[in-house]
Amino acid sequence: MNPQEEVERTLADIAARDAELGAFVAVSDAAQAQRECERALASGGALQGLPVGVKDIFDTAALPTSYGSPLFAGHQPRSDAAIVQAIRRAGGTVVGKTSTTEFAFLHPTPTHNPRAPGHTPGGSSAGSAAAVAAGLVPLAVGTQTGGSVIRPASYCGVVGFKPGYGALPTPGLKPFSWSLDTVGLFTAGVETMATCAQAISGRPWAQGLRGGTAPVFGVAWSYPWEAMSASGRQALERAVAALRAAGATVREVTLPPWLGGVFKAHDEVQGWEATRALADEYAFERDRLSPVLRDYLTQARGITDAAYSLALDAAAAGRDALGQLFDGIDVLLTPSAPDEPPQGYASTGSSSWNRAWTLLHVPCLGVPGTTGVNGLPMGVQVVAPLREEALCLKAGWVLEQALRA
Amino acid sequence: MNPQEEVERTLADIAARDAELGAFVAVSDAAQAQRECERALASGGALQGLPVGVKDIFDTAALPTSYGSPLFAGHQPRSDAAIVQAIRRAGGTVVGKTSTTEFAFLHPTPTHNPRAPGHTPGGSSAGSAAAVAAGLVPLAVGTQTGGSVIRPASYCGVVGFKPGYGALPTPGLKPFSWSLDTVGLFTAGVETMATCAQAISGRPWAQGLRGGTAPVFGVAWSYPWEAMSASGRQALERAVAALRAAGATVREVTLPPWLGGVFKAHDEVQGWEATRALADEYAFERDRLSPVLRDYLTQARGITDAAYSLALDAAAAGRDALGQLFDGIDVLLTPSAPDEPPQGYASTGSSSWNRAWTLLHVPCLGVPGTTGVNGLPMGVQVVAPLREEALCLKAGWVLEQALRA
Repeated sequence: MNPQEEVERTLADIAARDAELGAFVAVSDAAQAQRECERALASGGALQGLPVGVKDIFDTAALPTSYGSPLFAGHQPRSDAAIVQAIRRAGGTVVGKTSTTEFAFLHPTPTHNPRAPGHTPGGSSAGSAAAVAAGLVPLAVGTQTGGSVIRPASYCGVVGFKPGYGALPTPGLKPFSWSLDTVGLFTAGVETMATCAQAISGRPWAQGLRGGTAPVFGVAWSYPWEAMSASGRQALERAVAALRAAGATVREVTLPPWLGGVFKAHDEVQGWEATRALADEYAFERDRLSPVLRDYLTQARGITDAAYSLALDAAAAGRDALGQLFDGIDVLLTPSAPDEPPQGYASTGSSSWNRAWTLLHVPCLGVPGTTGVNGLPMGVQVVAPLREEALCLKAGWVLEQALRA
Repeated sequence: MNPQEEVERTLADIAARDAELGAFVAVSDAAQAQRECERALASGGALQGLPVGVKDIFDTAALPTSYGSPLFAGHQPRSDAAIVQAIRRAGGTVVGKTSTTEFAFLHPTPTHNPRAPGHTPGGSSAGSAAAVAAGLVPLAVGTQTGGSVIRPASYCGVVGFKPGYGALPTPGLKPFSWSLDTVGLFTAGVETMATCAQAISGRPWAQGLRGGTAPVFGVAWSYPWEAMSASGRQALERAVAALRAAGATVREVTLPPWLGGVFKAHDEVQGWEATRALADEYAFERDRLSPVLRDYLTQARGITDAAYSLALDAAAAGRDALGQLFDGIDVLLTPSAPDEPPQGYASTGSSSWNRAWTLLHVPCLGVPGTTGVNGLPMGVQVVAPLREEALCLKAGWVLEQALRA
């Protein structure tokens, strides 16, 4: 199938299957998609016209952008977000916008989880995770401020990649917390992820994916944010066993005590910044915010400058101390999420297993292939040192292979 | 004068004097400005209604935003940029948008330099620097991707502050190069700068401004980008003499050889990212771009992923090696710009004295009070280590006092 046919087939698939799935909130018409595809092909980029879904938290000039909020229903930005332009230069064809929770916070979207019917796909990048899980697109873009990439990837059984903070461009996204908002990607497998992330970022992240020496994995069984669930433990044990069976080295580690402080600092950074980022919406349209967001913003107004500043200092100190965390290991393995996807659609789950890493700005890769105690998807997360995106992807590929063996 | 009267007087001043100066491209009407002022006062923020000018590279919901380009004439964004919301929470009253060069690149604005008639105010934050220099507003916001805060501050004889990358929020600015675009501020003096920057950032940057031990200043007489001009040397010598006369310690230092590599890397980072950030404008509206921007983007398309990636690596390595640069000193002093403001309005001057610091993400403060060989403004720049904004401001305050003595 040539790229134009692939785009055509993608649009037909979405038309046939997305009414039930609810992953897309806006889709290009055929003529527009073919123009996008031609332009992508003309760029000569490595993605060769690949269809891409983009979370509706990013501005697009050719598709409406409502950031998951009725306040912005029908809003039509003037310019594309920088990531959209980078995808096009990399050869990707944006075919539609995927559902996001309200302003990428917690209020759920009406999106189903194709790998766990009746359960939430997670959030905030719900549509991007579900669209890839359903096979509607091979690549989708999301964002993570708490756990909005790695958690839905875990719930939907796909690969989620949150590179280091700022490694993919944020301009043109609706901000929630500018020290945390990080662009991430979803694919079905790690190799596609590495190829796509390399093409879009311009960084050699896919080099050395195969071959060479396997990374040394660290695994911790105790965490400062909460106890591991039975499902989290099962997934992690299965990953460790698979890696050892494949000949990889896995070392047990104890997490440094300051990591709990970084976890707590995330709340203060996010809250202080969200009250600024959503000041107008709170001031003028409070009644049209979801209760969960409204209450959050009301409470966050109590965060003082001093608390915010100390939280940023804790994060910076944590970054400086990362050598401790990675002492004797290349990457760390943890559960991707608290548990299997919660039943129903009232909650998108918790970001507790992701927040500290987001604030530390380190690359994280969510790898599927393990399940929880109920047989639903329950992923494992690879955490790598700052600027080690290539190592993160390589370790994820080793884990994926081991789990498939 | 109470804050409402201050805002009223500011609007009257702008109406009376800006037709000649050309610093503003959009100004709030009286009713709107008073509503803004009331809202700012209601926030309880430290700025207490202070009138603020915002560079027209930032989105504003109440004022048109054209990014200095005819492509966006009359464009009305839906939301305020994050910095606008942070200013309001800090108690500032946005009274108008200040002129920017086209997309914050080099094509000049029709803005005059109140401190050097017949000479460029510099760019890209031309209107913000000129508005503060003319006394129209006590505080204005700019951005720096190369030298767009520190250079116009030098040319216009005002204080310019570029905090560390990401320390003030960028969402809602029209991106040019997302690894470089940094929000900065202009004021007449350092103490006002410290107060305003602290209020807006939430960080304790103004604490310790007075008193305590004076920082140790480093000064270099040779730089990897170009030879110092006679004016640059005169300003730097005057600053060093004033500091020594005031009892401060100034040590001569030799800059590390890798700094030249970081300077060169800036070109590749900016060019690669600009071709993505302005992809639509280049693809669809090329004829309406200025020749200087069009030619730049055409040439920048030749920057390979590999060159971009190596440039980012050089910047990261430089950041890791900053301890070398600041060995034995607290802050570094350099000229703020190549020379006094060039005559005429055809060029906004060169950012060569600022680019490496912008890419290294370190705080920089441009301090006025010195002149070049023709008696025109020629500032001195204080460069501080990463996350040392408070130290940068304190050193700038010591320098300002010394120059006034």
